[in-house]
Formats: sequence, structure tokens, C-alpha cells
Amino acid sequence: MLVVEKKRRDFYSRFDFIDSILTYEDLDSAVTLLNSSDVIVPHGSLIEYLGIERASKLKSKSIFGTRNLFSWESDQKKKMSLLKMAGVKIPEQFEDPEDVDRRVIVKLPGAKGGKGYFVAESKGKVKEGLAEVMRKGLIKDPSEALIQEYVIGVPMYFQFFRSVVKDRIEITGIDVRYETNVDSLRRLVDPKGVEPSFVVVGNIPLVARESLLPNAFAYAESFVRVVDDLVRPKMIGPFCLETVVTDELDIVTFEFSGRIVAGTNLYIDGSPYSWLYWREPMSVGRRIARELREAKEKGKLEEVLT
Amino acid sequence: MLVVEKKRRDFYSRFDFIDSILTYEDLDSAVTLLNSSDVIVPHGSLIEYLGIERASKLKSKSIFGTRNLFSWESDQKKKMSLLKMAGVKIPEQFEDPEDVDRRVIVKLPGAKGGKGYFVAESKGKVKEGLAEVMRKGLIKDPSEALIQEYVIGVPMYFQFFRSVVKDRIEITGIDVRYETNVDSLRRLVDPKGVEPSFVVVGNIPLVARESLLPNAFAYAESFVRVVDDLVRPKMIGPFCLETVVTDELDIVTFEFSGRIVAGTNLYIDGSPYSWLYWREPMSVGRRIARELREAKEKGKLEEVLT
Amino acid sequence: MLVVEKKRRDFYSRFDFIDSILTYEDLDSAVTLLNSSDVIVPHGSLIEYLGIERASKLKSKSIFGTRNLFSWESDQKKKMSLLKMAGVKIPEQFEDPEDVDRRVIVKLPGAKGGKGYFVAESKGKVKEGLAEVMRKGLIKDPSEALIQEYVIGVPMYFQFFRSVVKDRIEITGIDVRYETNVDSLRRLVDPKGVEPSFVVVGNIPLVARESLLPNAFAYAESFVRVVDDLVRPKMIGPFCLETVVTDELDIVTFEFSGRIVAGTNLYIDGSPYSWLYWREPMSVGRRIARELREAKEKGKLEEVLT
Repeated sequence: MLVVEKKRRDFYSRFDFIDSILTYEDLDSAVTLLNSSDVIVPHGSLIEYLGIERASKLKSKSIFGTRNLFSWESDQKKKMSLLKMAGVKIPEQFEDPEDVDRRVIVKLPGAKGGKGYFVAESKGKVKEGLAEVMRKGLIKDPSEALIQEYVIGVPMYFQFFRSVVKDRIEITGIDVRYETNVDSLRRLVDPKGVEPSFVVVGNIPLVARESLLPNAFAYAESFVRVVDDLVRPKMIGPFCLETVVTDELDIVTFEFSGRIVAGTNLYIDGSPYSWLYWREPMSVGRRIARELREAKEKGKLEEVLT
Repeated sequence: MLVVEKKRRDFYSRFDFIDSILTYEDLDSAVTLLNSSDVIVPHGSLIEYLGIERASKLKSKSIFGTRNLFSWESDQKKKMSLLKMAGVKIPEQFEDPEDVDRRVIVKLPGAKGGKGYFVAESKGKVKEGLAEVMRKGLIKDPSEALIQEYVIGVPMYFQFFRSVVKDRIEITGIDVRYETNVDSLRRLVDPKGVEPSFVVVGNIPLVARESLLPNAFAYAESFVRVVDDLVRPKMIGPFCLETVVTDELDIVTFEFSGRIVAGTNLYIDGSPYSWLYWREPMSVGRRIARELREAKEKGKLEEVLT
Repeated sequence: MLVVEKKRRDFYSRFDFIDSILTYEDLDSAVTLLNSSDVIVPHGSLIEYLGIERASKLKSKSIFGTRNLFSWESDQKKKMSLLKMAGVKIPEQFEDPEDVDRRVIVKLPGAKGGKGYFVAESKGKVKEGLAEVMRKGLIKDPSEALIQEYVIGVPMYFQFFRSVVKDRIEITGIDVRYETNVDSLRRLVDPKGVEPSFVVVGNIPLVARESLLPNAFAYAESFVRVVDDLVRPKMIGPFCLETVVTDELDIVTFEFSGRIVAGTNLYIDGSPYSWLYWREPMSVGRRIARELREAKEKGKLEEVLT
């Protein structure tokens, strides 16, 4: 069952595998559409567009995942603090533009796919950039922006699944985001006049050097442990560690997603990693369905719904 | 059955799945090789190397696809006019180098994988570049070249299939072309002395941000509608919209292919998108075979052959 | 069965498909762990970390692959000489930094994922760079480094399998290595102060333009022929030609691997190429198992073990 804005019904009707489509005209009514037996699988847009307040009106035990993680995720500074507590490597963070002493990336609140993000090589450029995004109305106050060290390395997005039923963490796939226009700057010998932008428009599949995986798993475990401790009831289902890998083979996590991510779309028929666990195609969507079924069979449904 | 130049027989003989191989020594004889019951699946090279004139000698009802689209496709200006009529976003086009007022890419006729294409930042550079490709004999007259706005964004190639039998448009996959040497310029800190070139040598798989898809489908539908109107008998089978996605999430189509494209080779065992329609691996090759079989079963074979 | 350093046991225990895990505390004891009926599938790290000397202590007939190729592979100059004898296109090589007359890449011995490699545009830069890597203790003498023409084009890694049982060469897949930080330089408008590095941290899938494949196969065959002639008993199993493809569609091989490579991890469920040979998912791991089984059935086990 799909819940979707009315104007998008036509598009989703193209796909037979969606057994039913509920539509809404405005977001306030959207939250009232579901029955108490329905289970929502939250994605990034759910929180981004629904907003924390409306999301809190969704019925109790209607969400597969960690509902209370939403508020951590929607506040970039809280988000980074959770990672810091997990003890994973994170980039330096600068509260005050005045303190900037290296190349940084400035990120705006929300997960609207990187809109408005910019890279700056100096504190002066940070201030100029902040003035610009305020002028454009993207933020109201400089303090809303997150000023993060720009770690030199290559981006790598590790997708995990915390199974409550099996009591284990699985890697479900790895991807790289495809960002416009920054991923095409490379193609211009003379990029003069082109402002780099970081809007995510796709995902490319990837496998990691095997020797990176033990460390990636160690970070995933620390992350789960900290969420279990701080966010009730605990970490449930899919999450993603968004990292840069340096040439010292450090994995630096600059963000996380506490729910299913778009990069899993690559692996509808299974990923190079899902095949290590399953002898059948296992998308993350199917993995969630499997977890729900097994939880039900074992009387643990209450544990995976929030 | 494969029809191939004699010197390539050895290569293709390596693959058992090809049940028979016909060879030719020259292109003039190639067009006479087929029986009236044979069906040709045209690809880019068919027209590029066979030429429109020889292609027109292929028997009637021997082609799966829109034979009359070949002449539109082989003329870049006609090609762009078809897209314009479809109402999809396309780059600005400059008839006269004198009018160039922004960064442009200059494309030469034919689909020889981007050979001779160049980017220019000013009208002066356009003129220099045109003189150079004429000197090299790649074109005879500047008017043969297509001068197209160089849209800033990331390339994305949307592969579709228009099923006449099912009366629907399916997305069969998405890819990015891998071009030499432009896709390695990024790896040089100091690319001094390297002329960028745009020769396609491979394809990389990709999924698109989900919110791009409704728009991509809308464009695919407009395109099909215009072909149905202007090119007899109508749009049949696979086609590809070759686009740049901007950071405003605009999909700008700079070219199309009215037949199967090389990027479908990525998805021999199915793509992340084909699995949305089929519960079995569905390459575009197999999709074509399926369409032919179903057309035959429903007495519609005449409708998909031209 | 997996043989692994003790501290890695926990990581590999996560995966049920590994039926048993043997651990070692130091490499000297590692080589004594195996029974005479065990077969080792050597990978890049085996030689890199075990060292030629310890590797030579592994029991006779315990290795699937060409044991005697290890010493060729671990010496970059011997390695390139083998390619040269095979008649495949290779980059120019400079014995003396003084002779450098173009852009070169300087490679250090070993396969530690590209650590310490650098690009230089002039002989002066080569000398500076060599002094630097010596200062860092990465090499002891300039002559240890391989100074290779930096071929302009895009990297492409062709994975092959030489089947002794079927007496044929199969292509098992193609990939591009994902290198930090060089593959992210493209994302910086102003990469000032960033030293490019070439540490492999992942692999991205790819298919090649079809017209490249006959040439790639011709090179693979020449390579196998030369190994058969020079390295006893002959070429067995997986190997990889590591190439740059130019805009003249030349395939320039700058390295080879005489065994399974990390890029095959992409294709655990089969590659676009493996499906051309097999009607079932065929990873390279499974391909090796299949070869062993068929060799056994045909009494040819001795021929594929060294």
C-alpha cells in the first residue's frame, strides 16, 4: 500500500506491484489515512515534508523503525552529537565561522537533498556564503547552518539493517550519491563561473575494499549501542552511515540516516552484500517485510513497531 | 542469430548463447543476408555504419522498431526539433557561431561515440574548434555541427520501452556513459595540455532520485506522442532520453536514441527498474523477444514490425 | 573455509556462508595450518602480506592458480616485461628519471592499494617525488619505483578466467577502482593544497563498449599464451588486465593481476558478462569451485593445482 500526494497517483499507478494507493490532498489529512493495523515504513521525505509535529500524530505502534530518532535526525547538530557519543570518527565542527581554520562544507537544515550546501576554503568565504543563503531565504540565522570540516577522501554510504529478531547487524549495501552539479565539474577543463552544488539526483553502486568492512561494522555497532541507550525503545531496522574514506583508510562519518535510504533502490534484486546472508534476492523492502513476519511469528511485533 | 562482419566471427563465436552467426564481407551484401521471416533488432551502429540508404533496402516488415525514425535520428538538427515538438526541456541551440553567448558543446554528425565533440566557453573558441575539426576532415562545413548550450548538471540516460502490445511505457534502466578522456580529467590536479574528448567507452549503472521519475515519464510520454504523430507507423520498442539533470531538478534532454542503446548491456539480468514490472530477469533483449511473442499471439505482429 | 588473522575472526563470524574459520596469530604459523587436501585460492593480499618466501612453503598442489606467477607479479618491472612480451599495448617506461619527457605516474613496489603513488608532469617533479617517498621510508632506492607514462584516458579493469577444463578464456566482469582521494578531487572547485593519492577503497561496476571487447580478448589470449610459455605449468583460473582506454579506443595495459581481484566482489550474483556463459548466478568464487569440480570429474585436478 502506498500513501501519496494526489497528483502523484498517476505516476505510481504505472507499477502493478503496488497493490493499493491511498492519496491525500494536504499533509494534515495524510496522517489520518491509516488504519491501526497499517505499518508505515518511514523514509527521508516522511520527516522532511511531514514535519516532526505532524509525524508525532501518527498512531502509536504504526511505524517500523525508531520513531524517536526522527527528532535527532532532523537537527544536524543533535545528529552529529549522537555520532560523537558513538565514538565513530566524525569531521571537526565549527560553532563560529570565526573559528574556521581549514576547508569546510556548510550544510543547511533539512534533508532536501543537499540544496544550498557550499564548500569554503576560509572563514571569509564561510561568512560570504552564509550571507548568500540567508539572502536567498534558505536559513534565517547563521546558527542554523552546520559548519563541518571538509574531509579529503571519497564518499561512501554504508547501508545497514539492525535486526531485532535475529539480534544482529547486517550490511545491506553500499552506494555513492550522484550529486548535481558537483559530480560533473570534473568534466569541465575550465569550470570558471560554475558554482558547485550538492543536490542528490541518483545513486551509483559500489563495493568496499574488504579490509574496510570490520571497521565499518564496528562503527555500526557503536552507533546501534548508543541509539539503544539514548533513544527509546532502541534502534530498529535500516540505517545508513554516510562517510568519507581517507587515504589513511579512516572512515569518517559526516552524517547518518536512521531509516531506509534512497541508495537501497539500487538493490531491488539484492546487493553484493545481501547475497552473503540470503539465498534469495533480498531488497531492503523485502528485508523489512521479512523482519515483520518473523517478529509476528515470534510474538515480537511490539518490539519492532513504535 | 547474429549478423556480423567476417573478421568479428571469431570473437562472437566465444558465446554459446548465440545460436547462429551470419557473416558478411561488405555492407552492400549484408543487407541481402536475411530471410523474410527474420527480424532485425536495430542498434546505433546499424544506421551509423550501414547508412540510411542501405538500411532502406532492408526488407519491409523486417525491423522491430520504428524504421522511419532512423532519418530523424541521423540528423542532429532534425533530432532536436523532434524533442522540441515534444515539449521536453532541451538546451539552447545556436545556428550561427556568432550568436554564442554562453558555454556550449559542439557536436559532429553521426553517432560515432562522441568523436570530435568539444566544449567552448566563447564564440571565438567555437570558431577555432570548428576550424580544427574541419582541418581534420571530420566535417566539411561548419553548418554540419550542432552548437548546443552546455547545460551544467550531471548526465543521466533514461532507457524506456514502448510496448505496443501492453500499450504502456516502461522504464528499463538508467545509466551514465563513461567517456574518455573527459571522465578521467578529474583525476589530474594539473590537466594542462590535455584536450578533453568525449568518446563513449562504457556505461555505469545508476538509479535516479525517485522524485525525478514522474517528470522523466512525462517527457517519455510526450516524446512517444510526437513520434506517433509524425513518424509512421508509430513509436515501437526501446528508446532512450539522454539528459542532464540540473540542481533545480530540471531534466534537460540533449539527445535521444530511437532504438536499443548500449547502456542496456548493464542489465542483462534485469535492472532495478525492470524488477518493478517483472518477476523474472528481464533484459531489454528479452523484453523485445517477449513483445514479439505476445504480438504474435495477439495477431499484432504487423504492428511492431516496420 | 577461511584462514584469517585471529583479530578478524569476529568480523568474519558474522557471515553464515563461511562454513569454518581457521585463525592464526602470526604469518609463519599461518602457512602450516592447511591439510594436504585443502586448496588455497590466492588473492592479492596473500602474496603482499605473506611474502614470496613464506608462500613458497605452502604445500605443493595446494594452490588453485599459477603459483609461479607470484614472483613475476610482485616485481613491477618483471610484471611489465611479461605484458610487453605478450605484445599488448603498455605505457612507456622510464628507467632513469632524467629521461622523463612527459606526464608520468610513479608507482612503488607491492600491491598495498596504491599507497605512495604520485603523478608528475616533469623530470624535476619525479625527482622531488622520489626524494619524498624515500624520506617517508616507502622505498629505499629510487630504482625500486616504476616510472610509467601516465596514459590519458579512462581506467577500465577487465576480469578474465582461463578455464583449463573447458580450454577457453571467459570474461567474468569489468570494474573501475574507486581511489581515495583522487576520485574526489573532481568535486573541489579549488583543490589547492590537496595532494592527490591513489589508495583503492572500492570498486564500481561497468560494461564496456562492445567494440572494445574483441581487442580485450585478443590481449587476454596473448597474455595467457605468454604465461603458458614462460611460467610453469601454465595460466590457471582468474586474472585481470588493468588498463586505460584512450579516445583512439586503444586499450593500454598498465598492470595485471594473476589471480582473483577485489573487483569481482561486485558480481557475487553474476555480472553482465557471466550471464553470457551461464544460466545461473556465477561469481568468480563459484566459477573456481566449478572448475575444481569439473577438473576432478575429468581427472584433471593435478592440472589446475600448483
